[in-house]
Amino acid sequence: MLYEINEKAIQLESEGKKIIKFNLGDPDQPTPHEIIEAAYEAMKQGKTKYSSSAGEKKLREELASIHNVSADNVVITAGSKWAIFSLMFLLLKKGGNVVIPTPHWTSYKLTAKNLGAETRFLKTNIDSNWKIDVEKLRDLTDQKTRLVILNNPNNPTSKVVEEKVLEEIVQIANNKETTILSDEVYSDISFVKTKSILDFEDDHILVKSFSKTFAMTGWRIGYVIVKKELAEKMTKLNQISLTNVPVFVQQAALKALELRQKIAKEIREEYRRRVDLACNILSKTKMKFSRPDAPFYVFPKYDNLDSESFALNLLDDGVAIAPGTAFGDYREYFRIALTVPEEEIELGLKKICEALK
Amino acid sequence: MLYEINEKAIQLESEGKKIIKFNLGDPDQPTPHEIIEAAYEAMKQGKTKYSSSAGEKKLREELASIHNVSADNVVITAGSKWAIFSLMFLLLKKGGNVVIPTPHWTSYKLTAKNLGAETRFLKTNIDSNWKIDVEKLRDLTDQKTRLVILNNPNNPTSKVVEEKVLEEIVQIANNKETTILSDEVYSDISFVKTKSILDFEDDHILVKSFSKTFAMTGWRIGYVIVKKELAEKMTKLNQISLTNVPVFVQQAALKALELRQKIAKEIREEYRRRVDLACNILSKTKMKFSRPDAPFYVFPKYDNLDSESFALNLLDDGVAIAPGTAFGDYREYFRIALTVPEEEIELGLKKICEALK
Repeated sequence: MLYEINEKAIQLESEGKKIIKFNLGDPDQPTPHEIIEAAYEAMKQGKTKYSSSAGEKKLREELASIHNVSADNVVITAGSKWAIFSLMFLLLKKGGNVVIPTPHWTSYKLTAKNLGAETRFLKTNIDSNWKIDVEKLRDLTDQKTRLVILNNPNNPTSKVVEEKVLEEIVQIANNKETTILSDEVYSDISFVKTKSILDFEDDHILVKSFSKTFAMTGWRIGYVIVKKELAEKMTKLNQISLTNVPVFVQQAALKALELRQKIAKEIREEYRRRVDLACNILSKTKMKFSRPDAPFYVFPKYDNLDSESFALNLLDDGVAIAPGTAFGDYREYFRIALTVPEEEIELGLKKICEALK
Repeated sequence: MLYEINEKAIQLESEGKKIIKFNLGDPDQPTPHEIIEAAYEAMKQGKTKYSSSAGEKKLREELASIHNVSADNVVITAGSKWAIFSLMFLLLKKGGNVVIPTPHWTSYKLTAKNLGAETRFLKTNIDSNWKIDVEKLRDLTDQKTRLVILNNPNNPTSKVVEEKVLEEIVQIANNKETTILSDEVYSDISFVKTKSILDFEDDHILVKSFSKTFAMTGWRIGYVIVKKELAEKMTKLNQISLTNVPVFVQQAALKALELRQKIAKEIREEYRRRVDLACNILSKTKMKFSRPDAPFYVFPKYDNLDSESFALNLLDDGVAIAPGTAFGDYREYFRIALTVPEEEIELGLKKICEALK
C-alpha cells in the first residue's frame, strides 16, 4: 500500500494540493550542487554512451578502497533496490526461502513474492526495543534459506542492530551455510556507530546506496560488495536488463564520495534536530515510539489504530504517511519520514494528533 | 560473446589502445546540447527525487499524443532493454515459448534463456534478402507462444519488414492468440518507410527508445506502448526494481521529442552517407551483404569464416566487431556498426579486409 499512497500523493500534488510527505524516505534537501555540476560536466564531456555493466572502473576502485575490498567485488547498481531485486532474482532462482526480520522495508517482501520465493518473517517488537531474537532466527533458518536480509539501520524503526546481536546472527548464518544480505543504506548517516557486515570475514553481501547519504534518491545509483563470482553474475544480469547506470550519474557519485565526510555530517546533524523535534512532540501524546538511532524514520504505535484507513483518510488532510502494514504485521503502527522541513514536521504531527482524536 | 568483446574493448581502451568500435550500436555523435541543457536545468530545479514508477505524466502524455494512444498505455523504461526484460519477465512467468526470427538482437535470446523460457528461432537468409517466411512462422507458433519478437528495422541486418509480410505476421499472431513485441528502436531514423505495429488495431506491444534517434544510448531511457493492464503490471515491477528513470533524464527526453524532426533528419542523413561509403567499399570485396534500409548496421558474410575467432583476433588490430554467432546461427557473418566517423569506417574496413586475406 506504500506505493499506492505515493502514487495518490503525486496525483493530489499534480492537482495543486499541498501534501506534507511523511511517506517517503526521500530527503527534502537538494542534491549538493557540486554533485550536479559533476554530472553536467560529464554530460558535456560525452559521458552519455553505453559503458561497462559492472560500473565505471574508477568508481568501483574508489568504493573498493573505501571498503577495503577489490574492485572485482564491487558492482554499481541502479539504486539499492535494483541490487536487492537482482540478488534475490539470482539467488532464489532454484527456489529456497528468505528470512526477514520485521518490520521490514516493503520491497523485500514484494520482491520475494514476485519471484515466487518463500518468505519467513521474524517479528520484532517495540517492547523489546526492536531487538532481533537470535534463537528464533536460528529456528527459522534451514538448509533451504538462501538469504537472511538485515536492514541495518532499519527502515522503518531506525534502530541499529547491536554489535553482539550482529555477531550472533553472522554465527548462525555461517553455521547454517546461508548468506546475509545486509542493506546498510542508512549507516553512513547513523547517529550511533553501526557495525557493518564487511567487518566480518565471511562471504556475506553489503548493499549500499548514494540516495540517502547524498540526497540523490532520484539519481538511482547504489552498489553491492559481493564475492567475485556473484559480481560476475550480477554484471551479466545488468547486461541483459539495464546495460549500465548512466556514466554521468556515476561521475556525480564519484564527486559525492569526494565530499562524503562533509555531506554526511550535514545530513546527520539536520536529522538529529528533526528527530529531537519529532520525539519531543510525540512524547506528549499517547503514541508509543522508540527513539531513532539513525535517519529518517519514526515508527509510532497508537493502540487499536487501523493504519491503512488512517493513512488514506489523512491524505485528505494533506498528510501522507506509510501505514504499518507496509512493513509487516504492524497495523497499529505507521511510519513518519522526517524528510520535510521542521515547520512541516510540526504541522504534520499536529494534523496527525488531531486526526487521532 | 557480444558483451565480452565490449568489455574487452573497454579494457584495451583503458590501457591506452585505440580501438575502432564497430561492435556497438552506440552513435558517435554527442547527445545534442539542448538535451543536455534540459537535463541540467531539471537537476537544478530539484528534479532529483523519487517519482512515479510509470514515468512522468507530461512525458507519457506527449508520447501518447505522438502515438495516438492514451497516457495509460505508456510506461517509461530504463532503455528498451529494460522494457524487453520486464515484458519477458512478466509474460513468461508461467512458462511458454517465444518465437524469434533470426538473426536477432543478442539480448532477446539471453533474456529468454535467463528466464528459463523456451526459444524458437525462425531463420532468415541473405539469399532471400532476410525475408521472414510466414508459413514457417505459422508452424512455429502455437498455443504456448507468449511472444513473437519482431525487430523492425532489424538489428543486425538493418532490413525493414515489408508491409505485406507484417500484415501476414499480425494475422497469424491474432489467429493464434499470441502477442507481438515489436521492437522499433530504429524506425524513426529508417531510410525507408517502416510500418509500425501500432498501425494495427490489436493489443500488440511497441517498444521504443530514445537511444538511437537522439544519440542518448547512455541515458537509459525508452518506453513501451501496451494495453492498460500490462502497463500497470510493468509499473508494479518498476516499483520493486528501479523505482523510476531519473526525472531529469525524463525532462531531457521531453526536450528531445520537441526537437525530434530536426535531430532524426540529421542522424538519418549522416548514416546514409556512412552506409553509402561502407557499401561502396564492401562491394569491391568478396563479402556478401545486403544494403541497409536503416541505421546502423551492415551484416556481411565471408564464406567459411569463423567470426568468433576472427572478432577476437581483430581486437589486436584495434578493430572491434560483433561476431555473427551473437545473433544466431551465423558463424560466417559479422556485424559492423557504422557508429564511427567516415575516416574510421574506411580504416576499419581496410583492416578487416587485410585480416581476411
